[in-house]
Amino acid sequence: MKRIILIAFVLVMGMATTSLAGEPLASWNDTASKKAVIKFVEEVTEEGGQDFVAPAERIAVFDNDGTLWSEQPAYFQLFFAIDRVKALAPEHPEWKEKQPFKAAIEGDLKTLFSGGEHALLELVMASHAGNTTEEFERIVKDWISTAKHPRFNRLYTECVFQPMLEVLSFLRTNGFKTWIVSGGGIEFMRPWVEKVYGIPPEQVIGSSIKTKFEIRDGKPVLVRLPEIDFIDDKAEKPVGIHKFIGRRPIAAFGNSDGDLQMLQWTAAGSGARFCLYVHHTDEKREWAYDRNSSVGRLDNGLNEAQAKGWTVVDMQKDWKRIFSFDREK
Amino acid sequence: MKRIILIAFVLVMGMATTSLAGEPLASWNDTASKKAVIKFVEEVTEEGGQDFVAPAERIAVFDNDGTLWSEQPAYFQLFFAIDRVKALAPEHPEWKEKQPFKAAIEGDLKTLFSGGEHALLELVMASHAGNTTEEFERIVKDWISTAKHPRFNRLYTECVFQPMLEVLSFLRTNGFKTWIVSGGGIEFMRPWVEKVYGIPPEQVIGSSIKTKFEIRDGKPVLVRLPEIDFIDDKAEKPVGIHKFIGRRPIAAFGNSDGDLQMLQWTAAGSGARFCLYVHHTDEKREWAYDRNSSVGRLDNGLNEAQAKGWTVVDMQKDWKRIFSFDREK
Repeated sequence: MKRIILIAFVLVMGMATTSLAGEPLASWNDTASKKAVIKFVEEVTEEGGQDFVAPAERIAVFDNDGTLWSEQPAYFQLFFAIDRVKALAPEHPEWKEKQPFKAAIEGDLKTLFSGGEHALLELVMASHAGNTTEEFERIVKDWISTAKHPRFNRLYTECVFQPMLEVLSFLRTNGFKTWIVSGGGIEFMRPWVEKVYGIPPEQVIGSSIKTKFEIRDGKPVLVRLPEIDFIDDKAEKPVGIHKFIGRRPIAAFGNSDGDLQMLQWTAAGSGARFCLYVHHTDEKREWAYDRNSSVGRLDNGLNEAQAKGWTVVDMQKDWKRIFSFDREK
Repeated sequence: MKRIILIAFVLVMGMATTSLAGEPLASWNDTASKKAVIKFVEEVTEEGGQDFVAPAERIAVFDNDGTLWSEQPAYFQLFFAIDRVKALAPEHPEWKEKQPFKAAIEGDLKTLFSGGEHALLELVMASHAGNTTEEFERIVKDWISTAKHPRFNRLYTECVFQPMLEVLSFLRTNGFKTWIVSGGGIEFMRPWVEKVYGIPPEQVIGSSIKTKFEIRDGKPVLVRLPEIDFIDDKAEKPVGIHKFIGRRPIAAFGNSDGDLQMLQWTAAGSGARFCLYVHHTDEKREWAYDRNSSVGRLDNGLNEAQAKGWTVVDMQKDWKRIFSFDREK
């Protein structure tokens, strides 16, 4: 009897292993994009092959907004900032008549965007600074576990791209270290990315405000200051990668012109390289936008991807499903 | 016959395992310091124990200068800066008459130190900036593999503390991620720490100058600018830890007042914590200095360590040997 159980166990485990090893990227259609990802991983992991890369050098970097999760109708962090402003409004009666706070409190995205980058920055500073790092972490955790996306009425962490989760997992299975390199706030991402993407906080690069060490009531704290430390976007993405990782990635994944320099920096190293753009082409299941979008514009990047032969994912054609909840439909 | 070989193999492997597992910290005398390190590691790794810490949270941070390698008669990076100034001097005839360059070219440490922090900063800017990150990495690698320490006439990378290498290794064997958190230059350390300490470049935090992304001859480069980005010392050490790691360490190792806030920040977390100061007490084998030293002063830190019951290593009494070459004597 024991023996039968053992055999059954071995068979089941064998099947599980086969299924895992046999079908990476299960939510991808069998098109050129999927084949390109698999081919690259096979090349750099083939011991003795001419493109073999030692595990320590298998660094893959991922943009977040629009690459790992959606970024429409606005960056999700902006919804967080708006909710923070609403929560803090009772302590700031002057905000009722003062832009951009008035627009935030009224949920008026149009007016908010019309104020340009400066208005958004003012909003982020007012809503993200002033507390300790521990307090801010708790605030983010509370928000991310309750707030819902306006279109899908789902947690924001459900609005992540299932096919990209499979890429992350496929790379890690093959000895890669996966990193986020995002224009979003580093402290906005760190509290939840480990659970959602399997990426630990120490592998997250993002924009940040300064912090200051203080002793409060005999206890050391880090206080968040309303002062920009680093904006991790465009030409600053390679700067951030070099600062935090100190090695050049061999694979980079993005979706907008803000990721172009990161892809260029990755592509310019020696040996096998992989660059991929997620092209938002699926209005029905997600959104369709590129050259003329104010959020996540993909214009120069698309030209360069075509010129250099980088992989461009057509979300509509390449992905069987976009969100894990798509299959429920 | 095969069976005998198999048995022999098992025996040999068993002995090897026993010897590794049976004697961590082999260069440590059997004093309170060694016992404290081992006790802490046992506590946080005992599954089901009240002090158990999940592997992902086993973060240990180490100062470098004076904690992992020597820092006398001056920080080793200063010798590097001096050698760089000498190499660049032909392009800068004006340096012959201009301090602090004149003192550097003449190897006059006394005059160099008399210029204070400002003089040293000027030296570092002139010698560390202006090239690309790739060029600088090659320069550091060349220097570190050839330059010799003035007292020991050994490579600087041989002047590392054997007992601390054993701590690094012991922690990693027990699921810890080991990080360097140093006032030294991040790009001065990254090219060699992996080989010497087993710490990958992405686990190094240090002082830095700014870099700028540029396309040169169609190729993207990062150019090193003569502008401070971050000074990773004193109250900035917890700031750097939070910026790069995003988790609070559970163990911290330092040797000077510059590490005090890092130890305070580590100690203030909940659950089991471990803080250790290396006290330089061995004039014969290394150096003896503390409260009155200009390099690596340990004054407030020593008081706090005594008050809080942190482990203070007495190099003379606690360490069987300091450098791996000590045993050759």
